[in-house]
Amino acid sequence: MQYQSICAVKGVKAWGIKEGKYGLALIAAEGTAAGVFTENLVKAAPVELMKKQIRAGKLEAVIANSGCANAYTGKRGYADAVTMAEYAGEALGVDPKHTGVASTGVIGRYLDLPLIQRQCGVVAKQVTSSPEAEVATAKAIMTTDIVQKHALVERDGFTVAGITKGSGMIAPNMGTMLAFIYTDAEVGAKPLADALKLATKRSFNRVVVDGDTSTNDIALCTATGEAGKVKAQEFAGALEECCISLAKQIAADGEGASRMLEIIVRGAKKEDDAAKVARTVIESPLVKTAVYGEDPNWGRVVAAAGRAGVKFDPNAVSLWISDGKKKHPLVKSGAIIADLVAAKAAMGGRTVTFILDLAAGKEEAAAWGCDLTEKYVEINGKYTT
Amino acid sequence: MQYQSICAVKGVKAWGIKEGKYGLALIAAEGTAAGVFTENLVKAAPVELMKKQIRAGKLEAVIANSGCANAYTGKRGYADAVTMAEYAGEALGVDPKHTGVASTGVIGRYLDLPLIQRQCGVVAKQVTSSPEAEVATAKAIMTTDIVQKHALVERDGFTVAGITKGSGMIAPNMGTMLAFIYTDAEVGAKPLADALKLATKRSFNRVVVDGDTSTNDIALCTATGEAGKVKAQEFAGALEECCISLAKQIAADGEGASRMLEIIVRGAKKEDDAAKVARTVIESPLVKTAVYGEDPNWGRVVAAAGRAGVKFDPNAVSLWISDGKKKHPLVKSGAIIADLVAAKAAMGGRTVTFILDLAAGKEEAAAWGCDLTEKYVEINGKYTT
Repeated sequence: MQYQSICAVKGVKAWGIKEGKYGLALIAAEGTAAGVFTENLVKAAPVELMKKQIRAGKLEAVIANSGCANAYTGKRGYADAVTMAEYAGEALGVDPKHTGVASTGVIGRYLDLPLIQRQCGVVAKQVTSSPEAEVATAKAIMTTDIVQKHALVERDGFTVAGITKGSGMIAPNMGTMLAFIYTDAEVGAKPLADALKLATKRSFNRVVVDGDTSTNDIALCTATGEAGKVKAQEFAGALEECCISLAKQIAADGEGASRMLEIIVRGAKKEDDAAKVARTVIESPLVKTAVYGEDPNWGRVVAAAGRAGVKFDPNAVSLWISDGKKKHPLVKSGAIIADLVAAKAAMGGRTVTFILDLAAGKEEAAAWGCDLTEKYVEINGKYTT
Repeated sequence: MQYQSICAVKGVKAWGIKEGKYGLALIAAEGTAAGVFTENLVKAAPVELMKKQIRAGKLEAVIANSGCANAYTGKRGYADAVTMAEYAGEALGVDPKHTGVASTGVIGRYLDLPLIQRQCGVVAKQVTSSPEAEVATAKAIMTTDIVQKHALVERDGFTVAGITKGSGMIAPNMGTMLAFIYTDAEVGAKPLADALKLATKRSFNRVVVDGDTSTNDIALCTATGEAGKVKAQEFAGALEECCISLAKQIAADGEGASRMLEIIVRGAKKEDDAAKVARTVIESPLVKTAVYGEDPNWGRVVAAAGRAGVKFDPNAVSLWISDGKKKHPLVKSGAIIADLVAAKAAMGGRTVTFILDLAAGKEEAAAWGCDLTEKYVEINGKYTT
């Protein structure tokens, strides 16, 4: 069994446990660290804590639990997050001040600290670097995820790898996107933070399962430096590739999803414009249901683009649909040329891609999501208290 | 049978026909007119035409068809809309330049002009003022609507009434919200436009079924003046009441809806802040599915509010749930006091209301929507080309 992800990075050891809904992971890796956090005004206690910790620019370990988000839990919740860091620090022999804390699960409930202390003790004894370790760790942080999510990008002389969880932006009130990324490249705190910010913008921030932003979202990158210095741009490229791979895995594992949806917007004046249009289309329930029903209803794509708040000439756009193999034109410079039979045939696979050219400039951006199915409604509607 | 709506307004005559998917309505009413139109960049041809016509501040009649949106149809579509006005003008003996045109239905298809001409001839012969006329008219403009929607507000000396259609912002690519409102009050073009703009902001713009803004949305108000002058403020109040009634009917008839959802946001610094929060909560698929599943998952309401882009202190908010009879507290000044059993019991009726106090000011706003059900997915996913 080959390393698929974080354990391929020199200086990273990990383990995890999952007992019913409740999981716990420990990742020990000393290095420069940077984080990107939820922009929701309602921030979970661990997010508040980790935002403070990350300012020092270094981490020695991370403790993450699933099953309880420790969100909307006030001062007690914050104290509980600090206690989690202390448990991990003690069990791993690292400084709790440099131990990051992440949580995912039900909002508005307090942590079961005795459970966390017990799980922490069990996991700490097994922390190691092995293929089994990365699987156990990735599984421990899953909630409604069906598959574990790993990514590994190998470059000449260094490696970037990550694990992530997330299948609704907030899943059936279990939820959240957490990403733990590691590299053995030696990167300073500032360039690391900049690279992570840009990579997040182009990956996790362009995934939409249901448009709901969690209170607990965290993307974290730690650079152990054990592989030595690398070119900043080369590192940034590898990090972005890693994050995009993880982001696509989240989209494909969207709650109730039967297929992944990719929107590529080209010909925009600015990258941000392209991203805004791509995000609006990928969020549209009408586009999502059409993809589910294999209905090549391109009018919904154009209509969603039109309400994105970005200026373009609707009568100049072009639109294609693709199954990853062949592109079928639907609209060319504003003229409808849809071959609906061919278009429908392009919707039978696991991925449906729409390519929209705004004919307004040269920038582009992609966004990833999934179709909207009865299963999504079932998962999120039938959760009982 | 009593007048329920537009035929109770002096000077209004109407009729409609519905043949399968294809309907046509004519409303003859001469007077001052104002309109509010979709803000989607992709505007249907009839919207482009009506925007031009309405600048003159008067209308003599309206022709509206259902089944084809005449959207994304270019120059030919615009010419077709002009032709529709001419058909109506000729059939009713009014000026086509003062005949408004509205369409709702499939995007990206051309109008069947011979069908419209024939239906227009049939309907014009029956145009009258009767309870049957308003029912026939309201039915003619329906697409995926299950019920017809009428509102009537009677004040001392004048009447405001309207009909509307809409059940998805874009329904299964049939779609759109159209509202035709009439009053016999004498109102100038400018105060009429101002009152309609404000009333629309507080009613139609606060209804969200799926967040998709149609290419064809139109809210139109014509004042026949036959009841004489009225106080501007009194008229504005009556118009707002009429629009809110119609808006709520749209929310309750949302595609696949099993219950209506109302979000009242209080204690905001500005009305726009309150509206922004209310809209974000009502759009949240997680809130919508929770309401469907009768899951009093208040964490989702608070989390959605937190991502609305409005500043408030999450630890100071209060939240209640209501079935219209009794209010149950869920959060009080940031402290969780949820009695989940009582809260769940408040979710069994046709309407679920969340009242959120931001504790940041004195302004408030409401938004209306509906739950998200498997039926919505079915309606919008299984539309075949």
